[in-house]
Amino acid sequence: MLRILLINDTAKKVGRLKAALTEAGFEVIDESGLTIDLPERVETVRPDVILIDTESPSRDVMEQVVLVSRDQPRPIVMFTDEHDPGVMRQAIKSGVSAYIVEGIHAQRLQPILDVAMARFESDQALRAQLHARDQQLAERKRIELAKGLLMKMKDCNEEEAYTLMRRQAMSRQQKLIQVAEQIIAMSELLG
Amino acid sequence: MLRILLINDTAKKVGRLKAALTEAGFEVIDESGLTIDLPERVETVRPDVILIDTESPSRDVMEQVVLVSRDQPRPIVMFTDEHDPGVMRQAIKSGVSAYIVEGIHAQRLQPILDVAMARFESDQALRAQLHARDQQLAERKRIELAKGLLMKMKDCNEEEAYTLMRRQAMSRQQKLIQVAEQIIAMSELLG
Repeated sequence: MLRILLINDTAKKVGRLKAALTEAGFEVIDESGLTIDLPERVETVRPDVILIDTESPSRDVMEQVVLVSRDQPRPIVMFTDEHDPGVMRQAIKSGVSAYIVEGIHAQRLQPILDVAMARFESDQALRAQLHARDQQLAERKRIELAKGLLMKMKDCNEEEAYTLMRRQAMSRQQKLIQVAEQIIAMSELLG
Repeated sequence: MLRILLINDTAKKVGRLKAALTEAGFEVIDESGLTIDLPERVETVRPDVILIDTESPSRDVMEQVVLVSRDQPRPIVMFTDEHDPGVMRQAIKSGVSAYIVEGIHAQRLQPILDVAMARFESDQALRAQLHARDQQLAERKRIELAKGLLMKMKDCNEEEAYTLMRRQAMSRQQKLIQVAEQIIAMSELLG
């Protein structure tokens, strides 16, 4: 059963939407307004999906969305009356998986949530790839740095230094990056 | 004025949707069915948005979407009756910017297209970052390779080889990767 954190940031009563969601088989934890601390609520409630109903997403809402997307990413569905393409773009950039203008229709909730979750997964996969590349690049730089340090320490050439590092990694069953970090740390220690 | 390539992959007449789009101020080029070659049509028509109306996206539709997304990326909006989460996930992974289940309402078209375009831009930005990282990694490898070759040719150490390469790049106003490629090519020539 999907847990939905429902944020009502409108003047309307949350009742009808909550009823529709519950009827559709979701577990709903609802909050009124965004005076709450969204990251803190997400941390506590651990929802599968965050659903924000807002007439127009305020700067504060956007900031809270950015924080959640960065630290505790979740599919975020935003129902709003805000048509402005700039606001849309900002919302999507901030991490909103589905931005739905005009009206919540109970029978459309399920597919909207499903699409939002699929979108979220796809985005997360892309972000994970990006993160992996960043890490690869950073590791490569550290390994190069360590190799250079080792060449000086052992007065050897590049190939020899690299062979030494790989051999050390194999014999200690470590990754090359770990060996590199040890070399860098040791070089700092020795000054 | 936005140009929309409208693909009708349903048994319905395209008339009503086309009329709604035209009325909403879009230029519509419509096609019936997906027996057409979508990449070829996109190349010719150069639409701003592709809108596919389909009861359920077939394997063939998905493949055409993948090809377009890879070679001529465009915001793709898919209206469908297909609820299956697996199909949704597949569609989004293939490059669909907006997957809308159940019903096309004329008054909702504009925000849906706006959201799809914002989503498309955001995805493209992420993919461009990923591509840039891939390129950085590949260039780094080529530069390392060239440095190693130069070390052998000039019988010098790593720092000296790197300094030589940077100096060459500066004096010829080239990028380091270009200098690296020249070294690699020359090394191949000299065998």
